[in-house]
Amino acid sequence: MVLDTKHIAVVGASRHKGKIGHTILKQLLNKIVYPVNPSAKNILKKKCYASVKDIPAKIDLAVVAVPIQFVISIIEECCQKNIKNIIIITSGFGEIGNIEEEKKIKELVKKYELTVIGPNCLGILDLHEKLDTLFLPEDNLHRPDPGNISLISQSGALGGALLDLASQQRLGFAKFVSYGNALDVNETDILEFLSSDKKTEVIGLYIEGLKNGKEFLKTAQAIKKPIIVLKGGTTVAGTKAALSHTGSLAGDASVYEGVFKQAGLIQANLLSDFFKILKIFSKLKIKPEGKRIQIITNGGGFGILASDALEKQGLILAEMNSSSTKDLQRLLPQTVIVKNPVDLLGDATVERYEQAVITVLDDKNVDAILVLVLAQTPSLDLNDFVKKISAIKMKKPVLFVITGNKKAKQVCRSLEKKNMITFSFPEQAVKALGAYISHYLK
Amino acid sequence: MVLDTKHIAVVGASRHKGKIGHTILKQLLNKIVYPVNPSAKNILKKKCYASVKDIPAKIDLAVVAVPIQFVISIIEECCQKNIKNIIIITSGFGEIGNIEEEKKIKELVKKYELTVIGPNCLGILDLHEKLDTLFLPEDNLHRPDPGNISLISQSGALGGALLDLASQQRLGFAKFVSYGNALDVNETDILEFLSSDKKTEVIGLYIEGLKNGKEFLKTAQAIKKPIIVLKGGTTVAGTKAALSHTGSLAGDASVYEGVFKQAGLIQANLLSDFFKILKIFSKLKIKPEGKRIQIITNGGGFGILASDALEKQGLILAEMNSSSTKDLQRLLPQTVIVKNPVDLLGDATVERYEQAVITVLDDKNVDAILVLVLAQTPSLDLNDFVKKISAIKMKKPVLFVITGNKKAKQVCRSLEKKNMITFSFPEQAVKALGAYISHYLK
Repeated sequence: MVLDTKHIAVVGASRHKGKIGHTILKQLLNKIVYPVNPSAKNILKKKCYASVKDIPAKIDLAVVAVPIQFVISIIEECCQKNIKNIIIITSGFGEIGNIEEEKKIKELVKKYELTVIGPNCLGILDLHEKLDTLFLPEDNLHRPDPGNISLISQSGALGGALLDLASQQRLGFAKFVSYGNALDVNETDILEFLSSDKKTEVIGLYIEGLKNGKEFLKTAQAIKKPIIVLKGGTTVAGTKAALSHTGSLAGDASVYEGVFKQAGLIQANLLSDFFKILKIFSKLKIKPEGKRIQIITNGGGFGILASDALEKQGLILAEMNSSSTKDLQRLLPQTVIVKNPVDLLGDATVERYEQAVITVLDDKNVDAILVLVLAQTPSLDLNDFVKKISAIKMKKPVLFVITGNKKAKQVCRSLEKKNMITFSFPEQAVKALGAYISHYLK
Repeated sequence: MVLDTKHIAVVGASRHKGKIGHTILKQLLNKIVYPVNPSAKNILKKKCYASVKDIPAKIDLAVVAVPIQFVISIIEECCQKNIKNIIIITSGFGEIGNIEEEKKIKELVKKYELTVIGPNCLGILDLHEKLDTLFLPEDNLHRPDPGNISLISQSGALGGALLDLASQQRLGFAKFVSYGNALDVNETDILEFLSSDKKTEVIGLYIEGLKNGKEFLKTAQAIKKPIIVLKGGTTVAGTKAALSHTGSLAGDASVYEGVFKQAGLIQANLLSDFFKILKIFSKLKIKPEGKRIQIITNGGGFGILASDALEKQGLILAEMNSSSTKDLQRLLPQTVIVKNPVDLLGDATVERYEQAVITVLDDKNVDAILVLVLAQTPSLDLNDFVKKISAIKMKKPVLFVITGNKKAKQVCRSLEKKNMITFSFPEQAVKALGAYISHYLK
């Protein structure tokens, strides 16, 4: 696809900070990049060309960010220059009913065998290769760390907001593709590409509609990597809105649900769930052997709410076997009753947590563990907690739930640095775990 | 109730930092407080007494934080001293099957007409009066600002975590009562008290079980303030867990649901929802006239997801009347199509938002507005956004949704300071709005 590029032309490059063509050029300065703008001599210390045709090198990719009335002629020039890969950032095409212009570009695509992403898109972000055509500057959209999630988004803005959010939570991304109106390259093409991309282990997909359901189904079914999908337009109201956004016929929600199920996709129902499910698939490296969950907590109420959430999610509260129950009961103070949840009480220490986690990990009646931590209690030395707990070899899926302000957030960050997986509310962890388990146990 | 106190004894006061009896004393130093501990002369520069009986003043409230084997004799001493209000922090009573001790205390309550909160609780936090018996120090549990929410929690830890979380989001609280095993004072008593408390405008209630459903129903029905309830133990698994937590018979979820509905309570199903619903009732000062919602966005995908959420919540996408549609269409660029959602596009400016919000506020076909802002776009001057938008007189309920990292969080904070109400995900705002509207339109 468009991603393996060395020489890039930015058509519509601008001298003016804040302009789209300025931001894109700046972001690509680490590549061999050629600004194109007939009214500038140099931009960001790079020699500027009046047309792509003037560039004295073979160009692998042209990023087009010019006003809509110039787009067609620019693409024609790209064809003359034998540029095969084009990203069209410019909007104002099919999404507002301007289908004529799209038709003309489609003809060029066919005639010259082009690969075109867009129009009306952000383009591509490759975190490992530092290829970045997003016109949203770092100040506004903080790029996440390189990682194993690739995100395909029919909505550029939504994808961008998710990347920004991810950057705060140490969630790593491989590639992000905003493909806009999908004039040429669509979600299925990108899925296909990502299926063999070595950096991509988890695929997130935001779509409003599919142009070719059968082709999508066939491709998705063949992909072994987990694909998490969020569908915009699952109601009458949402479908109407989708029609005016990317011109997608969002169609009947139940039909889509069926297609996703058949294709083995994991469907998230809410934006916040989408994010949490991507997180668990990105970070958890152990496949579950069953759905019996043990809860360890230092707050009874949290244990109850987590139990409620587990049952609603179709997961099962584990029943520890009698020997580990006895072992743990011996290790813990008498006031701690070893059952599920194990409530280590308000004066819980790091040692209690350690003993509980280690014992439960060894119990064959337990498939996964939910560790709830109320960081407000003074008896718990949080630095020591992070050190000791993260040193345990987690041979089963273990998720942490920590609710609160600064202290809680600090612990989350420290645990995440040690490759532990944290959530703010019990129901979020349970939802993610449910999606994870049902994917691998199906 | 116990709250109107001047002279407080802390029984079990400790010299040692980190101890419960030290933290509690420290937190009460702004009051007239008397440490009680037979083995200390002074604690935190306060003269210490061997027994409450030795204190040369009338005591309004005794906070008891001594090991369980001393509790009964301490309460007997309190009775001899004619102290009527007692908070028992100590745990190890009914919640672990120790009912005998509770019985003895109950006899004393009856005989001496005591008012007892606890045992196994955090006690009371009054943010306006700075009365604070919580043994979780400020470092661990950041106290929220004084405000209009009062929280009653059967689980101290859960309540504490919510306060901590609230402190980060500028959510203000009046009073927090953690009543533990409810040996004497129960949720109904506290509800009754809060119903006439002038600082309390919204009541949050976390319960696992009700001791007396009829009494609760009668009291709750008579209260005009909105009461938001989160019930722990709505499943078989959760009910089991509740039984071992506070000894509550959590009972059949549908029975509780019926009671809550009859009592006019707003039930939250998840901890995160509970928090968001408290937020909207605390901050929104305008009652809705209907459930027709207009969405204003600068990201099409977000608009679609918000539309989906609205429909699922039983709310209606407003249809603006023709004159305001025309007005707005004239004010906005041609590429913006004025419908619902109004997508102000990726290059949306503050002016576009301003024009849209003002026009929609004036439209009689719209009852409330959801303003979605993708803070990633460089065309939007966020400081100016906060300034201009918060200057508009919001004569209808208006909620903001802003998703992302630092910039997004900054805007949220700035808007909240101007009394605007913000959320991170569209579905959260919609859930809160749904609860708010159905409460007032019922």
